Amino acid sequence: MARVWHLTARPDGDLDPGIFTLEDVPDPPLGDDEVRIANSWLSVDPFMRGMLDDHGGYMPALPLGSPMQGGAVGTVIESRARDWPVGRKVLHNGGWRDVAVVAQAACEAIPDSAAPIQRYLGHLGMPGQTAYFGLLDAAAFRPDDLLFVSAAAGAVGSAVVQIARIKGATVIASAGGADKCAALRDWGASIAIDRNAPGTMREKLGAAVRGVGAEGISAFFDNVGGDHLDAAIQHARVGARFALCGMIGGYGRGDQLVLDQPMRLVARRLRIRGFAAPDYDDRWAEFHEDMLRWTLSGDLVSAETVHEGLAAVPAAFCALFTGGNLGKMLVRL
Amino acid sequence: MARVWHLTARPDGDLDPGIFTLEDVPDPPLGDDEVRIANSWLSVDPFMRGMLDDHGGYMPALPLGSPMQGGAVGTVIESRARDWPVGRKVLHNGGWRDVAVVAQAACEAIPDSAAPIQRYLGHLGMPGQTAYFGLLDAAAFRPDDLLFVSAAAGAVGSAVVQIARIKGATVIASAGGADKCAALRDWGASIAIDRNAPGTMREKLGAAVRGVGAEGISAFFDNVGGDHLDAAIQHARVGARFALCGMIGGYGRGDQLVLDQPMRLVARRLRIRGFAAPDYDDRWAEFHEDMLRWTLSGDLVSAETVHEGLAAVPAAFCALFTGGNLGKMLVRL
Repeated sequence: MARVWHLTARPDGDLDPGIFTLEDVPDPPLGDDEVRIANSWLSVDPFMRGMLDDHGGYMPALPLGSPMQGGAVGTVIESRARDWPVGRKVLHNGGWRDVAVVAQAACEAIPDSAAPIQRYLGHLGMPGQTAYFGLLDAAAFRPDDLLFVSAAAGAVGSAVVQIARIKGATVIASAGGADKCAALRDWGASIAIDRNAPGTMREKLGAAVRGVGAEGISAFFDNVGGDHLDAAIQHARVGARFALCGMIGGYGRGDQLVLDQPMRLVARRLRIRGFAAPDYDDRWAEFHEDMLRWTLSGDLVSAETVHEGLAAVPAAFCALFTGGNLGKMLVRL
Repeated sequence: MARVWHLTARPDGDLDPGIFTLEDVPDPPLGDDEVRIANSWLSVDPFMRGMLDDHGGYMPALPLGSPMQGGAVGTVIESRARDWPVGRKVLHNGGWRDVAVVAQAACEAIPDSAAPIQRYLGHLGMPGQTAYFGLLDAAAFRPDDLLFVSAAAGAVGSAVVQIARIKGATVIASAGGADKCAALRDWGASIAIDRNAPGTMREKLGAAVRGVGAEGISAFFDNVGGDHLDAAIQHARVGARFALCGMIGGYGRGDQLVLDQPMRLVARRLRIRGFAAPDYDDRWAEFHEDMLRWTLSGDLVSAETVHEGLAAVPAAFCALFTGGNLGKMLVRL
């Protein structure tokens, strides 16, 4: 039997781990080209919030009673796929379970390197791809940018801060709490904004911009929405580029965005772009080459917050939305 | 003496023509390279609203007591500029007055053609340039677009609808009232949305999109903001391009933009760009060549709403914000 987390209720207000139920599922025999994988690390990610509701619009709702999807890495323990022997380390999307049966075409071999395999759920996986292409393509990054990164202590934001630093930009980054702000500075942010500190985000971003001697930000990588997006519009230079990655401040909270003085969008000639990592799947190789090199050289460090055991998955997921992670949130089996 | 409209009070709530005062101003002798112009047509434009407030952020506030700026066309009646004889027709920005003294470098000769000279305040001038580059560059127009144009009966929108039709796109356009909607259809809109008709803009745009057999709009040229922008986000295809030109629905009305389900910006990978006509001044020639050709061939028609006499300028200006114009709003002296 495999043990699998299922979605058994829709969220109602604040996220509650009780909407997920752990169930035993028969372990089927393998079909042609399938492998059986013993998972060693499971991923929980903010984007998963989007499939829990049936009124969201961000992504299709997962039907109630379905097994949860998500990134996982593990080891092939049985194989009917010609090229993939037992023992091969793989990445797949059948997560939130201990054992998975997956078609070879639906998983990817993890390249041999000195990088820990769980990194393929973080900076060498989907969150890293999100950061890399969101910054370099969607935000049209330039080395002379003054970049603002929101929710910068998370898996995506922590990569954005460091890629921008490696490429020479000046970075202002926000997170919740003194410990996270210290990490942002370690990673290369010139100024870390504590969203829990007194004052509005607009005031705090204004002070940060003045603190680096600038008139405004030239680029923004947004994981939050709400007051962070409003503040960025307020303190943007003419022609500033905004990449919208997520709105963790707003998921499930009535989902309204209120912008003061929206004519600033016109007056400042802002360029605002929504994007998501899969838009760049055909450019995986260039992402992986850069990020693996920076990982192995130590230029890019990867913080991880690790929960232990399959039972911990729902709590780890819910903690993403209350600031419970520094860097990538993971569950180790 | 010249007779000149001055801004003598800030707007307070709805626009009131009483914030402008007509004053006699001494007519100075000409300096080197200056010309004296007898104006024949004055322009009133929505963007002028932005310089009346001292808290707006769209453009610098005009100090109280200053003469109003704005586009005007007229005839040189006295010249100390070598190349510009008496009788030359010129375009300048010293408007809201009967006679102006302007440096040659601050005005432009109107090319000889069969186009009426007041067209250089409309489709052959700043509003036309706004439409042309806003559509073709900021909205990254494609001939297979399903384009939505808001406030499409105005000087800018009427050009956007027709340029898009000339280039082969399908157009949905909005305006207020049956007469304006009839004009939109004459200009080539497949569906005209009456913003005064029952229902929300979201509902009406949804019906229009279904009416042309589409799943959503692929491009949006926005002159309104507010409910039009919200509706466009709701009914946008993945990757839709939005050019934000103005927000006539919101000027001076508390200036808040409320968007439901803002995660659609991410999910739909929207590309939203603020722009303004002066961004494209270095590409004037290509704009003028196309628009003059379409004007002379009759492919592009230019509606005009004409008020008579200098005394009518403030009322004409205020009527822009209550839907008082079909096409370009002008004052003839």
